[in-house]
Amino acid sequence: MKLATSLAIAAAACALAAPASAQFAKPEDAVKYRQSALFIMAQHFGRVGAMASGRAPYDAKVATENAEIVAEMAKLPWAGFGPGTDKISQRAKPEIWTEQAKFKEHNEKLVAETGKLLAAAKTNNLDNLKTAFGSTAATCKGCHDAYRKD
Amino acid sequence: MKLATSLAIAAAACALAAPASAQFAKPEDAVKYRQSALFIMAQHFGRVGAMASGRAPYDAKVATENAEIVAEMAKLPWAGFGPGTDKISQRAKPEIWTEQAKFKEHNEKLVAETGKLLAAAKTNNLDNLKTAFGSTAATCKGCHDAYRKD
Repeated sequence: MKLATSLAIAAAACALAAPASAQFAKPEDAVKYRQSALFIMAQHFGRVGAMASGRAPYDAKVATENAEIVAEMAKLPWAGFGPGTDKISQRAKPEIWTEQAKFKEHNEKLVAETGKLLAAAKTNNLDNLKTAFGSTAATCKGCHDAYRKD
Repeated sequence: MKLATSLAIAAAACALAAPASAQFAKPEDAVKYRQSALFIMAQHFGRVGAMASGRAPYDAKVATENAEIVAEMAKLPWAGFGPGTDKISQRAKPEIWTEQAKFKEHNEKLVAETGKLLAAAKTNNLDNLKTAFGSTAATCKGCHDAYRKD
């Protein structure tokens, strides 16, 4: 009975630990996944930024289309930071895995801020877009400063 | 006047040719972008496929969440196949750039089929999901057979 209980607990622990990494066939896929999502996000965020900074003409429709993809992409990377993926990281700091709760807070802030960016884009007001862009960019920087190697 | 007309036509031609590639700072970014979108799509499509084939338990909510990302990702890669990106491709066949209209048709079919996959997922009916998954997978294969090197 004791053995059965231990096995049941071990199985439950595995099930709890599994979700993030179990979605991927191998840790390399998880790393590639999070890098892909962050790269796509950066491309579209950069296009919003070009409008916010005046480097590109402001087009509310284009801003919204890009902000939509940014907001969708912001939800994805977290799943790619599962157990085992720390060993094959290049720029991800070990603190990501030793401070998982804090790191997750950063991710949740990113989801919230990019949601606000999309809402701002939909107001068709450049000043709103500028404010939300600055706030989202600060969120990116906050996480990069804490968890990304130079 | 003749020169001015020629220049105007040339400028118009550039403007027409520019959109896809002009979104990216360099052709390498465009290639990375399309590969990233296709990789994320494949990850989520694989999870739908695991349910459609019985390798994973059917969960209508999870199927829909994954199909949503598949349908969003399907819209992105086209922009990454712009002029100049053929020279740094590894698996993309040159026919992509010599048969642009035909290649775009494949892309539009993918967008349509992944839209149907999402609609099928939302019916909460495994048989519908299986049918739509098979049809979408055939669309992936059709394009890969024609335009991707082995």
